[in-house]
Amino acid sequence: MKILKNGDIVCLFSEKGKKWFVKIENRHFSTHEGIVDLQQMVGRQSGDFIMTSTNNKIYFFTPSIEELILHYVKRSTQIIYPKDAGYLILKLGIKEGMQVLEVGTGSGAMTLVLAHFVGDSGRVYTYEERQEFVKKAENLVREFNLEQRVCFHTKNIGCGIEEKGFDAALIDLKEPERYLRDTVESLSCGATFGIVVPTTNQVSNVIRECEILDVLGLDICEIFFRRYRVNAERLRPQDVMVGHTAYLITGRKIKSG
Amino acid sequence: MKILKNGDIVCLFSEKGKKWFVKIENRHFSTHEGIVDLQQMVGRQSGDFIMTSTNNKIYFFTPSIEELILHYVKRSTQIIYPKDAGYLILKLGIKEGMQVLEVGTGSGAMTLVLAHFVGDSGRVYTYEERQEFVKKAENLVREFNLEQRVCFHTKNIGCGIEEKGFDAALIDLKEPERYLRDTVESLSCGATFGIVVPTTNQVSNVIRECEILDVLGLDICEIFFRRYRVNAERLRPQDVMVGHTAYLITGRKIKSG
Amino acid sequence: MKILKNGDIVCLFSEKGKKWFVKIENRHFSTHEGIVDLQQMVGRQSGDFIMTSTNNKIYFFTPSIEELILHYVKRSTQIIYPKDAGYLILKLGIKEGMQVLEVGTGSGAMTLVLAHFVGDSGRVYTYEERQEFVKKAENLVREFNLEQRVCFHTKNIGCGIEEKGFDAALIDLKEPERYLRDTVESLSCGATFGIVVPTTNQVSNVIRECEILDVLGLDICEIFFRRYRVNAERLRPQDVMVGHTAYLITGRKIKSG
Amino acid sequence: MKILKNGDIVCLFSEKGKKWFVKIENRHFSTHEGIVDLQQMVGRQSGDFIMTSTNNKIYFFTPSIEELILHYVKRSTQIIYPKDAGYLILKLGIKEGMQVLEVGTGSGAMTLVLAHFVGDSGRVYTYEERQEFVKKAENLVREFNLEQRVCFHTKNIGCGIEEKGFDAALIDLKEPERYLRDTVESLSCGATFGIVVPTTNQVSNVIRECEILDVLGLDICEIFFRRYRVNAERLRPQDVMVGHTAYLITGRKIKSG
Repeated sequence: MKILKNGDIVCLFSEKGKKWFVKIENRHFSTHEGIVDLQQMVGRQSGDFIMTSTNNKIYFFTPSIEELILHYVKRSTQIIYPKDAGYLILKLGIKEGMQVLEVGTGSGAMTLVLAHFVGDSGRVYTYEERQEFVKKAENLVREFNLEQRVCFHTKNIGCGIEEKGFDAALIDLKEPERYLRDTVESLSCGATFGIVVPTTNQVSNVIRECEILDVLGLDICEIFFRRYRVNAERLRPQDVMVGHTAYLITGRKIKSG
Repeated sequence: MKILKNGDIVCLFSEKGKKWFVKIENRHFSTHEGIVDLQQMVGRQSGDFIMTSTNNKIYFFTPSIEELILHYVKRSTQIIYPKDAGYLILKLGIKEGMQVLEVGTGSGAMTLVLAHFVGDSGRVYTYEERQEFVKKAENLVREFNLEQRVCFHTKNIGCGIEEKGFDAALIDLKEPERYLRDTVESLSCGATFGIVVPTTNQVSNVIRECEILDVLGLDICEIFFRRYRVNAERLRPQDVMVGHTAYLITGRKIKSG
Repeated sequence: MKILKNGDIVCLFSEKGKKWFVKIENRHFSTHEGIVDLQQMVGRQSGDFIMTSTNNKIYFFTPSIEELILHYVKRSTQIIYPKDAGYLILKLGIKEGMQVLEVGTGSGAMTLVLAHFVGDSGRVYTYEERQEFVKKAENLVREFNLEQRVCFHTKNIGCGIEEKGFDAALIDLKEPERYLRDTVESLSCGATFGIVVPTTNQVSNVIRECEILDVLGLDICEIFFRRYRVNAERLRPQDVMVGHTAYLITGRKIKSG
Repeated sequence: MKILKNGDIVCLFSEKGKKWFVKIENRHFSTHEGIVDLQQMVGRQSGDFIMTSTNNKIYFFTPSIEELILHYVKRSTQIIYPKDAGYLILKLGIKEGMQVLEVGTGSGAMTLVLAHFVGDSGRVYTYEERQEFVKKAENLVREFNLEQRVCFHTKNIGCGIEEKGFDAALIDLKEPERYLRDTVESLSCGATFGIVVPTTNQVSNVIRECEILDVLGLDICEIFFRRYRVNAERLRPQDVMVGHTAYLITGRKIKSG
């Protein structure tokens, strides 16, 4: 059972179906359904409720990592979607104890997901040359107390990857084909890499680059996600859905020669 | 670096793109590309290769959990697809140390995935009344040396769930609405449950049942997965795709009253 | 070659990719790219251009029926989408000379499409009990000079269908299963009917009703439509797409007994 | 009411849900449900039934154009799918009386659809350099008594299009960008063209070519089609669906200068 304390991030959930994500601090939080005294949550468990100033019930939860990615991570850059992140975690075989390379920290959303799954005994090494992104991602990771699982490098991997023998790698930046050789070389033999790209031209570029590297089992896919309205007597999909996030490319490093 | 030994499951991968999944034993394995002496892989690392009797190169890998589900688990019953399993892992917030309830062991594919992600300090409690399924799932889990992470119960949860305070639950059997009350009651306050159902009628039934339980934040979705042909100059999706696996329903247990 | 005259509906198309649909009248039309004197288009051909008051080029076209449905028909009620309308036209085998029954005129969008395809020698008989919808649909059909191809009935078909021997029928209203028997009875033997419904519960209701009627070859589908960004070097789907419009059900009337 | 005669193509439909497409001739037709004397259908109406030698009921129908494309046209080359054909018919605004150019006759499936919709007063001009395809398409069109609506040219349009002022054009061959200039030049001002291509590389090539032609309003899409199982109490999509047929590109010819 999770007992909440100051500094925790919670998802507030009104009975009308509205959602907010806040950090528990010594302050009041205003909603259309009244004002909430955040301190009232301290010492209580996830799933409990508090009343607003206008007497509306607000439930609060420890958010899942899926909710954090979608609703909490600041959209300073393209975030990775849960539908894609979940598939990649399985496909890359991420598990506790793994050493994972991330090329392109970006918003830090995927850094967070990777750190979540490598556990206390694993580690994520993430490279990003834009300092403001590194800073934001560091703050994000610290907010979830996962900083000891992540090693941030403020540099382009073109300038050298400082570690070797990664168990998995994920590339999420603009010209992945330029960083693929270095990424593959830094992997353990047999390890899987993943690449996230929005355009078909990038997919073609990655395929071409893989043809000259020690890579096998290239696999390319895209994932669609469609929500349904929660109505037992009038069940139907929602009117609008996300039309595209990214193409996902994965492959395996093989022994040279 | 992963050094292979007898009893390990490997994915064989020919240069022509054909795949096989076998356990390393003291035997020969026949393929259209020649015969492979499985013992040759012992002591070597994932990503290395061996030659067949007809001089074809066969690479071998430690399979990812995504490949295991799709290719290795015997299709005795409906398996869960990686696209769905990955999303549920994120949505249920599965992580090391968690105590997870699985209602309906089925093929054991999802049991394996859950066991993979709860780590050495977590545990999966799985209920299934059909003894032959329990047996197969136990063998499967043992094959991956995860038996200490799973507790199998050969019974219908209608006869009582023996544990309490689960951090997450997954229901994957025919009439989930019949088991939902017991499942929700066995969860920690604030915990998330997931339900996997193939038909729209089942979705409606689950929604109706949730309306009378201590549940909030019901979310219903389906996920589509489309592969692309690996061809840089003629990039296009594959001709055929899976049209449907399941609707995924998730929700949160709230404090009663 | 189409020469434009007063009363014609045109699609204005700026070089920046913005679109407007207007009727050619004796007035000026204001856009963000300047003011357009609509009379300048009279006597000129579709595909030509005029200059706005701020010297921007605006091309004008006779709109296709696909554009009319999507952009011109007033959204007083749910419109049918081109992706669905086009498929139904093929599936119902609509062609010149056909006598077609429409149950539920609604916005008149599908009335317009049917009238377009039955030609001068065919006829659409459309039933709608809400007088304000009939009025709007009549105006719409008149605007395209197709009024001689459509017979409007302001009544519920439960009160009797006045014609017999239809070559095809389309049902697009709330409880189609209530009108299915009358619709099927009014069809020629062997003719095809189509039903458009947004929810899965309605689909189940229609299937149940068909089981007791002289109907064969029931076919149920849904159609997804995804646009791509027009960018040769960065080709990718648009971020957002329509998640759902309707389930399409079709079947054939067979001889009784 | 349609009375069947020798030479007509019919769809046979067993009560078990099996379908066959045959031409009515003086012969017997064998099925798993018994032998059918095809002559028994002569003089009877679509939607009626006959009994097989083993006393099974077989209904017969005049097929819709959607069924003809999917089930009757010989798959000598890639056929166009009804989901795509229906949308293109709407998007190109095809109607009775139109003069339509088809570049690449292929199987003749789309020729048939276009001929169906241009009516007796319209005409389809179709170009194809492979003589065997022209022959097959001519036979197909003749089988449906639409030969007076189609003009076949056994030549590459690179050698010159013999007509001018088309109301619409459809390009369905391998390197559409090579034929786009000639196609656009042969269109009436304001007319719409459509292009059907399977790969993303072709889409990029077409976009690039359009940038230097008198073309506006380029629109690129793909259409997905998913069937459902006909079961009111267990409603769900079919397990497998078509993953890809083609990208559809449409645009408008504008006045030069």
